[in-house]
Amino acid sequence: MKEDWKKIEQFARTLLINATKNIKSSLYDSITINTKSNENDLVTNKDEEIQRYFFENIKTEFPHHSLLGEEGKGDELKNVNGIVWILDPIDGTMNFVHQKRNFAISLGIYENGIGKMGFIFDVIHNELYFAKRGEGAYLNDQKISPLKNIVLEEAIVAVNAIWLTKNRYLSHEKLGLLIKKIRGSRSYGSAALEMVYVATGRIDAYITPRLSPWDFAAGKIIVEELGGICTTLKNEELSILKNSSVLVSNASIQNELLTNYIEFLPDQKEGKF
Amino acid sequence: MKEDWKKIEQFARTLLINATKNIKSSLYDSITINTKSNENDLVTNKDEEIQRYFFENIKTEFPHHSLLGEEGKGDELKNVNGIVWILDPIDGTMNFVHQKRNFAISLGIYENGIGKMGFIFDVIHNELYFAKRGEGAYLNDQKISPLKNIVLEEAIVAVNAIWLTKNRYLSHEKLGLLIKKIRGSRSYGSAALEMVYVATGRIDAYITPRLSPWDFAAGKIIVEELGGICTTLKNEELSILKNSSVLVSNASIQNELLTNYIEFLPDQKEGKF
Repeated sequence: MKEDWKKIEQFARTLLINATKNIKSSLYDSITINTKSNENDLVTNKDEEIQRYFFENIKTEFPHHSLLGEEGKGDELKNVNGIVWILDPIDGTMNFVHQKRNFAISLGIYENGIGKMGFIFDVIHNELYFAKRGEGAYLNDQKISPLKNIVLEEAIVAVNAIWLTKNRYLSHEKLGLLIKKIRGSRSYGSAALEMVYVATGRIDAYITPRLSPWDFAAGKIIVEELGGICTTLKNEELSILKNSSVLVSNASIQNELLTNYIEFLPDQKEGKF
Repeated sequence: MKEDWKKIEQFARTLLINATKNIKSSLYDSITINTKSNENDLVTNKDEEIQRYFFENIKTEFPHHSLLGEEGKGDELKNVNGIVWILDPIDGTMNFVHQKRNFAISLGIYENGIGKMGFIFDVIHNELYFAKRGEGAYLNDQKISPLKNIVLEEAIVAVNAIWLTKNRYLSHEKLGLLIKKIRGSRSYGSAALEMVYVATGRIDAYITPRLSPWDFAAGKIIVEELGGICTTLKNEELSILKNSSVLVSNASIQNELLTNYIEFLPDQKEGKF
């Protein structure tokens, strides 16, 4: 079956715009609601509501496509065949609850395991990052320039402070050497936004030991389209079928990061969490 | 001499709006300029240019006021008497250079050492945070609600990952216990923005072992107006005459932070860096 990618893109954009409106209006509501009920419940509801909105509409329009979202809500994927829509309706849930900003809708569309289109919508700042494989990446209407080479001493790297404390996944001592080497570190609390920050050169790498496919599916497409690299922290290819560690990096520093500063702890199994 | 605070406020707002326009237009220029010259030079120039613009205009309009900015450019303050304008023209310089966002103009106006008005302008997101001592705090035209009590387990704390590695200032082990205790940590790379994030409840504390008066002068006024607390990491009052460590905190967790998680290293002298 020949896919109409123009139609798919247009359909995705419409869903994103509608979902964004819904989320924005609910943020005003929640100022009232939060005082009566539990904030975390509210968020779970919103998260589920947005995902249901996407999935019901996609199923109706493209019944032969598969859907992947947070556990149990999409299709059970046994393989990567065909077209798969991969959604995180609210990436950066803690920011959504606590800050009412710095979260994003993340939507990646894959064909036979290959990323074709990635959308990351920074809802509050009204910034839609979009890439179509082989055809460039955009921030709203503006084409994003490909990444330039940098040196590690001048890099800004996003890594959460928790990985600088003793943990099950990563050598915090090695990571500490990195933090001392680079120009600066940041932490924003949304994988999708941290990935588009790498894509746009605002930061130069993002290191995290555990993500789900819906956290990285869209970002991977956007980053790669601009010359960045997305792999596991062991330099393996990311798969949309499993959880994994993720290194998102400007290509010019990726090897140095992997070789000198990232070490999985010996008894740690990739993707089991 | 009776001060006309209405006039001072209006004058400050005009300077801020003009400076913001200047910075925004230069960000577009710099896309060209950066390829030819050194990015850091460019920034230093912009920083100095904005500070000169403020200080020349303030000196003309209010010749009896004092000015405090980055070393050597304002007045040499021997005491806190009279009215002092304290400016950081671009707070978050690394973000300014590398990201072209996530920086702010920070302007605090003090009278006899007491903060009277604080302005923090998030230039790119067009958000002006403003507080007038005793008269409330605003984000653009919207009044900001006072801070609510929280518990540490549900707090988000801004702390740079570098302080989780062995350093001259703070016990990184104790800070590590905090990172494991709280709901999450963030790092944004601009003291002024991290302070208004505490003021608006988007984060609940901000910990940093070294700031200059122009980094915290405006933020302190805004945070205190909303019920937050700004002290050194030893719970001492902040002085606009000296550099110091800074703890900005929701009042409900401040004592617990100081008592259980923050420890200056024995040979570390406060404010010497």
